[in-house]
Order: sequence, then structure tokens, then C-alpha cells
Amino acid sequence: MKKYVLGMDFGTLSARAIIIDALSGEELSESVFEYPHGVMDRELPDGTLLPPRCALEHPEDYLVAMKRVISEAIALAGLTADDISGVGLDFTGCTMLAVDENATPLCFDDKYKNNPCAYVQLWKSHHAEEQAQRITAIAKERGEKWLDIYGGAVISEWMLPKILYILENAPEIYDAAYRFTEAGDWLTHLLTGNETHATSFVGLKALWNAEDGYPTDEFFAAVHPRLAGIIGSKLSENILPVGDIAGYIDERGAALTGLKIGTPVAQAVIDAPAGMPGLGIIGEGELMAILGTSGCYIVNSKKSISIKGIAGYVKESIYSGYYTYEAGQCCLGDGFDWFIKNFVPESYTADAESQGVNIHKYLREKAKKMKIGESRLIVLDWFNGNRSVLSDGDLSGMIVGLTLSTRPEHIYRAMIEGMAFGTKMIVDNFDENGLPIKSICASGGIARKDELLMQIFADVLGREIKVGGTTQACALGSTVYASVAAGIHSNMDDAIKAIAKPPVKTYYPIPENHKAYLALFEEYKALHDYFGRGGNNVMKRI
Amino acid sequence: MKKYVLGMDFGTLSARAIIIDALSGEELSESVFEYPHGVMDRELPDGTLLPPRCALEHPEDYLVAMKRVISEAIALAGLTADDISGVGLDFTGCTMLAVDENATPLCFDDKYKNNPCAYVQLWKSHHAEEQAQRITAIAKERGEKWLDIYGGAVISEWMLPKILYILENAPEIYDAAYRFTEAGDWLTHLLTGNETHATSFVGLKALWNAEDGYPTDEFFAAVHPRLAGIIGSKLSENILPVGDIAGYIDERGAALTGLKIGTPVAQAVIDAPAGMPGLGIIGEGELMAILGTSGCYIVNSKKSISIKGIAGYVKESIYSGYYTYEAGQCCLGDGFDWFIKNFVPESYTADAESQGVNIHKYLREKAKKMKIGESRLIVLDWFNGNRSVLSDGDLSGMIVGLTLSTRPEHIYRAMIEGMAFGTKMIVDNFDENGLPIKSICASGGIARKDELLMQIFADVLGREIKVGGTTQACALGSTVYASVAAGIHSNMDDAIKAIAKPPVKTYYPIPENHKAYLALFEEYKALHDYFGRGGNNVMKRI
Repeated sequence: MKKYVLGMDFGTLSARAIIIDALSGEELSESVFEYPHGVMDRELPDGTLLPPRCALEHPEDYLVAMKRVISEAIALAGLTADDISGVGLDFTGCTMLAVDENATPLCFDDKYKNNPCAYVQLWKSHHAEEQAQRITAIAKERGEKWLDIYGGAVISEWMLPKILYILENAPEIYDAAYRFTEAGDWLTHLLTGNETHATSFVGLKALWNAEDGYPTDEFFAAVHPRLAGIIGSKLSENILPVGDIAGYIDERGAALTGLKIGTPVAQAVIDAPAGMPGLGIIGEGELMAILGTSGCYIVNSKKSISIKGIAGYVKESIYSGYYTYEAGQCCLGDGFDWFIKNFVPESYTADAESQGVNIHKYLREKAKKMKIGESRLIVLDWFNGNRSVLSDGDLSGMIVGLTLSTRPEHIYRAMIEGMAFGTKMIVDNFDENGLPIKSICASGGIARKDELLMQIFADVLGREIKVGGTTQACALGSTVYASVAAGIHSNMDDAIKAIAKPPVKTYYPIPENHKAYLALFEEYKALHDYFGRGGNNVMKRI
Repeated sequence: MKKYVLGMDFGTLSARAIIIDALSGEELSESVFEYPHGVMDRELPDGTLLPPRCALEHPEDYLVAMKRVISEAIALAGLTADDISGVGLDFTGCTMLAVDENATPLCFDDKYKNNPCAYVQLWKSHHAEEQAQRITAIAKERGEKWLDIYGGAVISEWMLPKILYILENAPEIYDAAYRFTEAGDWLTHLLTGNETHATSFVGLKALWNAEDGYPTDEFFAAVHPRLAGIIGSKLSENILPVGDIAGYIDERGAALTGLKIGTPVAQAVIDAPAGMPGLGIIGEGELMAILGTSGCYIVNSKKSISIKGIAGYVKESIYSGYYTYEAGQCCLGDGFDWFIKNFVPESYTADAESQGVNIHKYLREKAKKMKIGESRLIVLDWFNGNRSVLSDGDLSGMIVGLTLSTRPEHIYRAMIEGMAFGTKMIVDNFDENGLPIKSICASGGIARKDELLMQIFADVLGREIKVGGTTQACALGSTVYASVAAGIHSNMDDAIKAIAKPPVKTYYPIPENHKAYLALFEEYKALHDYFGRGGNNVMKRI
């Protein structure tokens, strides 16, 4: 009886595979593998220096990781490849690369191996900020209707700014590219021999929508004459809706993975929303908050609404019949890592060490003892730009209220509060624009580990926040698609019922804390608008 | 032949004495002694906890230090007390204490030794901020003319807010106080048996001026009914102009110091301006910048001008016939110490140690390599409030432009630049209000040691900055007064000619740097006015 499926999750730093019994939902095994090259933000493997704000990856890493996690997960589950009835995968996005006719990345070619544009341009690479602004301006000037879908702005993380950057800075790569593709679609292509593109990638990251398809050729030509005709050539139109089968493992796929030829492979999905089926929070107005390196806020609705300042929404991206809306914060866990690495003194690290506690926990303990407002600081949490609701990668972080009495724990706590205020801006923005948020369920490393942050988020939002029932929401989501592709379940709803994990915990807002935070939130909002909505564009000028 | 004089400088953390040959200017010896209790900002010696923002000292420390530095300086010079023809001293201000009829500090009484208000309230104690604001409001409401002299605000460091704080929080100390006195005047009283008060203290810090004396009794009564009648009782009116002799060492003075009975003692002067005669920069429009823990900017003029936003001006304070104008920055060296103690990571301190360099120097080296604007940060340098030109102790520091790429050296450099911009606000304010600054000479530890800061200051100001010829400008200034008191010189000008040290170095502005900084200065000014002039009073609310 068919029941075992394999779900893969390709994250920023590592890939993971889990194998589950798709009937009982039981997880049999899990395997994780870190990408050997990691994120390249200073130089290529050969020492070539990168332009500022670049974050690249090496596509070879994905292949090495894929082979490894599949074989290890199968072995750990005590199964063989024959037992795997279906495969699904999710990937970060827009994480794009240029490939040749054989789907071989251009960086595999010796000619291009010292060219940064021949490597994978990771989702969080912000090197194309200037291109993004130009594209936004052109789209606005032309009154492009699709712009509303993306909250009024094209941001630098997406497909088109990244392609335009390549065209303008490495025309030889642009010329040599047979296709520009999302890394997730590239993998299903290698596994099955079918080149397909998933709605969740192109819809959220490449300006495509189910009603109108891609923008017009006139628009692309207006952005750059050489982009005319790109649709159907360097950007494929072979787009499959969510839940479809991408294809079946072929010879190359079997060689790459050890999986059996003929195993069905579900259409890839973008990583963050893939957690929704994994956590079973896929219904109208149920917000999933993924709190990790960055913050991602995703919610489904049957309605099509244009909401300014969200990253985008797309139909049939995750769940048939629903529009999926996504907003985000560019900096969350990243911010704490940055702060701790750069701004925590030896006296603290030594004290933490002597107490045998992790420095994050050490600072959290100090921050926890503080009363609301005690830090006397307000932080604008834009240390990596603002994704929502201002959609402006050129914004930056700000701290006000610093005195000679300010200590690291004050800033640490104020950063948490600033991020919570940023989250409230996003949730309020959904609420106020016709997409009422009914519930919030959080996943990601921070949701599991950081009780202080979670309580502050609940207090600031004045809402219950549930914590999702698995740490592997994305990989588990991928198994949901895999189980449908395998025919174990006939539809997503049945698959979710069998597989999704219920929440493990709830954070309740404390009314007096909420009240105290509302006053500080007004201060945050005033600064947010001053620095973010043109009161003073100093962040862009300096 | 009379030629040796002794000058003492009582600073924030230590006292110093130097002995010079007042005819040749040659320095014979120097002695420094750190106050045993240091600055008490958390608790009294018996463990009594202090209110927030308090900075107290123990008056016993001054007596111990005075005896020690005098005897050591005399011994090191190979002299005896008989050789000392005159004594002068300068002291920080307003550094005040309550004393009884015998000039004994109230904290020496067992009844009051656990009462913070019975100790010396150090100049930089900001516990009376609320009182200062109330006094300012009352003075404004009453249209008090003298308010113009002080740039429109009474600040918490001064005499009256500190007295009002004592009256309201420790009425038993107020009742028991026979006098409130500056510590500098208290010492000349102990040395000579004459209770006199120096124009430089009362003029700069106690609302007195040569034309009108103290504010009216109606004003004091309006501040608090119990302050009615304070002038002539708890605040003495025995005020002597600069350059006068306070008296002659009497028996008690000889016992306290080992000096010979009958030695003339010059009127005390406030510490910062005392450097002017020491450096010979006492003429019209010659600005002395004292760059140490905080920044102090002092300039003399024959004109009486009301300049908004300066800390005050007073006639006959330092130099007969001149008005002395003082402005300041609350945070300079303090700020770097705070940053390095709290926000520099172990990796830096370890690296500095392995290179065998001081961590300040280590950070300066990193900051020096950066181009103007490279930090992409703007700092408002109000980490300890703003003394000039906003005169607002409730303001706080701000950093804008932070990203995940920001490193400690970026902030360190941006702090220097922020302080330079703050200095430019002060210099421009003098220039624009009828007191053109002709030259700048800097003294203080930073002027001597921090070449990066000095060059940035010159570049930002677009002016030459000379570095004063001695590290002991204040103590040397005190010898100038001592030499006049001793009759070695018949007037200040002659004394300065013989004693003052010429500059040792000049920093020249680099034209392209100045131009680049002017653009950033505009950003600073916009933020300065937004946060400091009511655009957004968030700093006061949080």
C-alpha cells in the first residue's frame, strides 16, 4: 500500500528532507545538509570580489545537498527508494539562476565561473535595488495595472530587477542564458526532464498573475529595449498551477537522487507559504507568521484585494481557489545575530560563558527583567530595508533615545519591540484594507525558541499567537503536495487533515502590556512615517 | 626674589598641582591625586542607593587630594613652602555643597551622612532636570531679563535647580544648610578664613551678573515660597571680581595644606575658562575648545550680546573688562568610553589585545580608513543631553542609517562626525549672533591624543584648529592668577605673556572633505531641528 512520501525544503543555508506516512501523518525520518559554500556575499570561490549587497549561492550545493538528504532520509526511515510514492519540494524565492539549453547553470561553464551573475542570485540579494526603483517608476508612469497586486512597488529581491541587473552589468551572461529560472523550478526540471514553472514563484516574484499572465511586451521593452520578447524565450510561459504534478523521475533524476524512475514529483512551491498546509492554517484570514532570519506573513483569502504595501498576492499559489497574500519584514533573527556579533561586549560574552548560557539567552534574560518603556528607546526595525508596508529596500534602521545609561540589553529589547511594531503595521494594514486577520499562528525558529519575543509580539498586537505544531512546516507542507501527486490523497484538504500538525502552544496578550505598548506604537508610527513616507528621506540620501 | 607660584586644578576625577617659575614660565613640578571615592553615581559610601542621574562626590576627597598634591609638588620641585609666593585654584562648576557655619560640609555630620543631598552635587549630576525645567518655565512666564544671558534656559547642572531639588527632596538638609557654596569657593574659604564667591562661578552657574546681581527675591519666591530671602542668607552676596585676592593662608589653611601662613590665595575660578590664560587665548573672538569628557567652548568679547542656546556669559569672569561666553556639549570622551565599554565585541577587543594596541586606537585606525559618508550613518550626539544650542537635558542620542552591514567602527566614526556637527552648530551660533569666531584653539585630552577626531573637526568646521601648548592649561591658568596675587606680575596681560604656552600643532581643513561634510551637516541639522526643536518630541516622551 502506497503511503510513504518525501518532502524537501531548500532553505537559505541548508536543505532538508523528511519522510512521512501520509496516511497517519507520522514522521519517519529527517535529514539536513548545509550548503558547502553557504551564502557568498564577499567573494566567489575563486576569490572574485562581489559587488555590494550581493548574496549568491552555488547551484552545485543544491545538487550535493539533494542527493545527500534523500539518501539519508530513506536510510534513516529503514526504507528503500521503492517505498517512496511521491516527492515534493519547496525552495526560497526569488532565488534565480541563468541556465543553458540543458538546464546547466552558466557558472558550471569555465567561461563564466568568475562571473557573479552566472551564480544563483539568492532571494535576499539586494544588489538590484537601483533597477527595482527604475522598474517601479516605469510601471507607475505607464499605469501598469498589475502593480496594484504587488502593493505598488517592484522590489529588488524579485526576478525582473535581477534580470535587468544581469543585462546591464553582465550582458554576456544575459546573452548566454537560455532561461532564467527559479532554483526550485530548476530542480523539478532536473528531476523529471519537464521544464515547468510554479505559479507560486512566478505569481509572487515574477509579475505574473492567473488572469493576465505576464506584463505586456511593451512594458518589458520600456524597461529595456533588449527585454522585448523575453516572455516565451528567456522566461518560460510553461506555468503549472499549484497541486499539479511536475512530472516523474527520469533517468537523470534517478541518477541525481537515487529515487526510482517514475516516482511522481509535485510542482515546486515557494518555501514560506509551503508551511501553511504543513501547519494546517490555510483558511480565510488565518495568518501564518514565519519568524526566522526574516519575518514572513502569509494569509489566504477567496477575495482579490489590492493592498498597498504588501509584497504581493497570487491566485492558486498554495491552495486551489484562494489568493495568497504575502507581507514581510526583511530583518528579524538576522538582526539579533548582527547585534550580538557586533555590539555585545566581552564582559557580557564572558559572563554568559561563565554561566554556561548562550549569549542570546543571556541577553533575553536581561531584557526580560525590564519593564515596558524602561529602555527609553524606539527602534525602527529596517536594518535590512523595509519589505512591508513601505516596500523600500533603501530604508535603514534607526535608534532614538540613546543615553550613556543605555546598555546592550536595552537595545536588544527595543529591537524586539521595534520588530513587533513593524508586525503590527503589517497586521493592521491587512485589517484596514479588507482582509481581516482572524487568527495568527507562528512558525520558524524564533517562534519556538524565543518566549520573550513571542510574548512581546502578543502584547504589542493585542492578539493570541499560536505556535505551529512542527519545526518542519515547510518540509511537511511539501509532503502534502507529494501525497496528492502520489494519489494517496485525492485533494489538498484530505491531505492536510491527515498530515498537518496542530499548534503546540498559545501566547496570550496581557491587557496592561498591550495598553502600554499602544502608546509606544504611536511613537513608532510617527517615526515610521517621518523616515519612511517622505517626511525626511535622509535614509536614502546618506 | 619671589618667583614660584602654585596652581591647582580640581577636575572631575582628580586634583592636580603644578609649580612654575612665574618669571620664565618654566614648570618645575606636577602632582596628581585621584579622589578616593571617585564619582558616586549608584550609592553612598554606606551603601545608600542614589536617585537616578545623580553624580555625587565626597568633600573629604578634595581635602585629602589638596594636601597631597601641594606637598608632593613642593617636594618634587625641590622647594619648601616658604618658596611659594602665591596660590591659585580652579574647580569644576557648578559643583556645590551645603555647609554649616564653620564651613563644614553637612555630610561630615553623622546625622546626614546617609543623605545624598548632604554630599557634593557634582557639575554633571542631572538629577534636578525636572526642577530646571520648572525654573525655566517660571522665569519665562515672568519675563526675567537675565534669562537672555543664559541662552533662554536654566539647566539642571546649575546652582538653583540643585538647591530646589534639595529643598523639595531633603528639606532637613535645606534647613541645616548655613550656605550653599561652590566647592572651589569652599576651598578658598578653608584656606584663608574669608568666605568669598568668585564671579566666574556665580556668573556662569548661579544666575548672578555684574550689572544686576542675583534675580529678585520675587523670582525666588515664585520658584518656591521657601526660597524667599535666600540671597544674603543661604547664598552669600560676598562676590569678588576675577583677579582679586581671596585672602591669605591662615592657621586652618596652613594645617590643611602645609603652606606658609600669609601666602596670598587668588580668587578661585571655574575650571574650564581657567585654561584660557594658561593657553594665552584670551582675546576677542578667540575660541577655546576644551575637548575632554565633555566639550566646552569658551570665548571672550568686550561686547555684551544675548545669544540663544549658549550656556551663559558673564563679565569679569576670567579676564577683566571682558565678557566670557560659554557653550558646551554634554558628551564627548564620555560617549566613546560608553560605546567602547558597552558596544564593542570580544572579537575586536581580542584583536586589539593581540596587536598590543589600546581599543580606542584600534577603533580609530579602522574608522580612519573609511571615506566620508561611508558609514552611511548620521548620529545626534545627545547621549547625555544637549547643552548648546538647544539647552535641553532631556534630549537623547539617535543613530539613523543602521544596516546589517554596520560595524562598530562605523558608529564610532559617525559619533565623531555627530560631535563635530554639534560643534559646528555652536560655532555657527556664535558667528551668526554677533560674536564672530576668529580662531580656535583646542585643549583637553582628546585634542592631544585623537588625531582622527581633530582632523574631522577641522574638516567639518572648515577652519584651522590649533592645539594648545600644554596639557595642564587649567592648572597653568591658575598659576597666572596666583602670580598676580603674589605681586610677581602687576596684571593678567603681563602674567600671560610670561607664563602661557603657545600652540604645538595646527589641524588644517581639507577643502574637499569640508565640502563633503557640508552636505552631511545639512542632514544633521534637519534631524537636529526635528528632534530638538519640537518637530517630534519623542525623546521627551519615551
